[in-house]
Amino acid sequence: MRPYDVILKKRNGGKLTKEEIEYMIMGYVNGEIPDYQMSAFLMAIYFRHLDKDERAIFTEIMAKSGDMLDLSPIKGVKVDKHSTGGVGDKTTLVVAPIVASLGIPVAKMSGRALGHTGGTIDKLESIPGFKTSLSLEKFFENVNKYKIAVVGQTANLAPADKKIYALRDATATVDEISLIASSIMSKKLAGGADAFVLDVKVGSGAFMKDISSAKELASAMVEIAKSHNKTAVAVLTNMDEPLGTFAGNSLEVLEAINTLKGQGDEKFRTLCLTLSAWMCHLAGLGSYEKCFELSKEALDTGKALEKFREFVKAQEGNEMVVESPEKILPISNKIVEFKASEDGYISSIDTEKVGIACNYLGAGRVKKEDNIDHSVGLEFLKKIGDKVKNGDTLVRLYVSEKSNIDEAMNLLKQAYNISSTKTNPLEIILDIVK
Amino acid sequence: MRPYDVILKKRNGGKLTKEEIEYMIMGYVNGEIPDYQMSAFLMAIYFRHLDKDERAIFTEIMAKSGDMLDLSPIKGVKVDKHSTGGVGDKTTLVVAPIVASLGIPVAKMSGRALGHTGGTIDKLESIPGFKTSLSLEKFFENVNKYKIAVVGQTANLAPADKKIYALRDATATVDEISLIASSIMSKKLAGGADAFVLDVKVGSGAFMKDISSAKELASAMVEIAKSHNKTAVAVLTNMDEPLGTFAGNSLEVLEAINTLKGQGDEKFRTLCLTLSAWMCHLAGLGSYEKCFELSKEALDTGKALEKFREFVKAQEGNEMVVESPEKILPISNKIVEFKASEDGYISSIDTEKVGIACNYLGAGRVKKEDNIDHSVGLEFLKKIGDKVKNGDTLVRLYVSEKSNIDEAMNLLKQAYNISSTKTNPLEIILDIVK
Repeated sequence: MRPYDVILKKRNGGKLTKEEIEYMIMGYVNGEIPDYQMSAFLMAIYFRHLDKDERAIFTEIMAKSGDMLDLSPIKGVKVDKHSTGGVGDKTTLVVAPIVASLGIPVAKMSGRALGHTGGTIDKLESIPGFKTSLSLEKFFENVNKYKIAVVGQTANLAPADKKIYALRDATATVDEISLIASSIMSKKLAGGADAFVLDVKVGSGAFMKDISSAKELASAMVEIAKSHNKTAVAVLTNMDEPLGTFAGNSLEVLEAINTLKGQGDEKFRTLCLTLSAWMCHLAGLGSYEKCFELSKEALDTGKALEKFREFVKAQEGNEMVVESPEKILPISNKIVEFKASEDGYISSIDTEKVGIACNYLGAGRVKKEDNIDHSVGLEFLKKIGDKVKNGDTLVRLYVSEKSNIDEAMNLLKQAYNISSTKTNPLEIILDIVK
Repeated sequence: MRPYDVILKKRNGGKLTKEEIEYMIMGYVNGEIPDYQMSAFLMAIYFRHLDKDERAIFTEIMAKSGDMLDLSPIKGVKVDKHSTGGVGDKTTLVVAPIVASLGIPVAKMSGRALGHTGGTIDKLESIPGFKTSLSLEKFFENVNKYKIAVVGQTANLAPADKKIYALRDATATVDEISLIASSIMSKKLAGGADAFVLDVKVGSGAFMKDISSAKELASAMVEIAKSHNKTAVAVLTNMDEPLGTFAGNSLEVLEAINTLKGQGDEKFRTLCLTLSAWMCHLAGLGSYEKCFELSKEALDTGKALEKFREFVKAQEGNEMVVESPEKILPISNKIVEFKASEDGYISSIDTEKVGIACNYLGAGRVKKEDNIDHSVGLEFLKKIGDKVKNGDTLVRLYVSEKSNIDEAMNLLKQAYNISSTKTNPLEIILDIVK
């Protein structure tokens, strides 16, 4: 076999065999196949795509290129949740305690902020003392004891995907459904869970800008899971505006705690309940409707909040954060306001720009080597469909000395559109793919 | 500008500007743009193509990446001929003397054998004493004095094309019309001629297997020439069987001399006259029809043969080759015969396989470092449409001790098809594109 022949076959629209896919991926990882052949191969895939069988194999080979976690020390059905990334997406902080409080084990490995989207690990580290790196033994022990543990990714999961992703990122071959789906699912498969709830974001703040491509991606991921005898459900959710009230690390923890207390944004609550219900359903707790009711009850009775406290304490965080989040969490008290410059209705929000504005305050990373400032962020006072008057505050910016406020304000100005005609508020749940 | 953005633009079907094309090509040549971005870019071009304007620019940038020959020391209109490469293609050895004998300067830089096709320079070197490397001054001097000189390519013509071609060859991006046309024409433009006659081969022994893609390539090349205020005519010629009677270096010189003496294969003679006529026409000698008559006269009166003798002598070859080619040229006397194994008509010949068979005898190079054996080759006794009987000799193999006869015979067996139904002989000239 020669790399040339495999590139040619895919370029001409042929269907690759397992041997050919393995030869290309592992040859590239081992350094036997040079970058320039792999990038031509990826561009050929961009145009010709991978079919259902090829995707399943592509995913499997990437998953097996590194550690394959064995979660068998954890009792019960292990359900993982994955979000394709959004602005203000703190769902894990609410969903994980709900699900754990219902007796379903949540063994979650999470990521850090990337691009314009935040990361659960960065958010949890706003809680003083909270440890996001545990040994695998301690991780398993916590899950068995408390049904919940959330740690940073330490295992060497799908290194082939990492290497290939870096190449795609440099050669304009990122946005192809088969490659995106295989990339995400290779890490999920390596993570060892039995079932997956996939939160696929759609809209101006998401990777998938329109519902049809999001649906395609969702189906691709669900199909890959099925090919490996795992179950998966994808929930398509709206990212045409920021999720909930806050973006930024401490501020999102604050919002999560408020939601666990039964307060806060209604759409965000709906999303958390939906995701929790699907996770419980896949774990075998009963019908989706029953699981939805159980999740609601866990929120309303404070069971989920107590589970969150237990979780914070178990990972050495200051549990007082539950009672007095505003006191315990580092939240900047220096506030700047972004105001409406005309009367009308909020008609659209370029949410990716909002995410980048948040990074310019210091909440994420503009460059890879930047440090995260947990105290800064954005508070969204108006959403799509809201009536506003010239001079009304649309967004509160929690800033620090290092924040690039001008750049953030400039991006917000570009992001918010006000129209004279009334616009409807957005639905949060757009579709379910299973 | 970033390479990423240019790759993305082409991938999405955008039209590239001169700045973008120059940035990619020269950045790659200078080592600022890595292989893997260039190969992704080339694969994107494979799928999206280059339009007329982009091709003209692509060609120009590659041409200007190295020496641009100044042929102004040569008097008159300089017309160059280019063949896309075939099996038994010795037309230059006949056409150049015809055209030169009519007073049109022929300043030809030729190549060596490549793949399954032969090279004019290798052929000329079969003539004892013949020098294919002259200084540029001597080259110009000979052209002005004798109207003819043929040398190996010594100038650094279109190095960008060379580097890009090597990458295309490794990444399955060779067979795309815009890239092929730009590659050929960049070297032609750098070569400095005023007009070009392009012999575009079509068929089983050519790069272009069918007439429609050959026509597309021909049009692309003619358009590129026009964009640079040069004239060009493309002659589409049949390569579904070997050209003429012989393939192999000495044997092809022998055939060329026979043709110059008015003997030999009729189709080959027609092709030579057609190409000569177009060259003379582009040089301003009159209508195509008049030029065809003049070319025929040059052949029939022996004027072209005398020009050939002058040419050989001027480049220090043994001019006795004209009188006694069989004596002067090194031609093997060890002959093996490939015979028909059934009765019928020759229905098709896989000419590429015939070319490779010839290489296995030693006439070309199987590996880059191989030496050429000028004495070996093939003699074609039967062509498509000919009636044959079981046991008839189809091909005579002139072999040497180093020839891999088994491999050559095996390829010939695969190449020749005999059918019980009558097949028509092939036309040599298929179309003209101008």
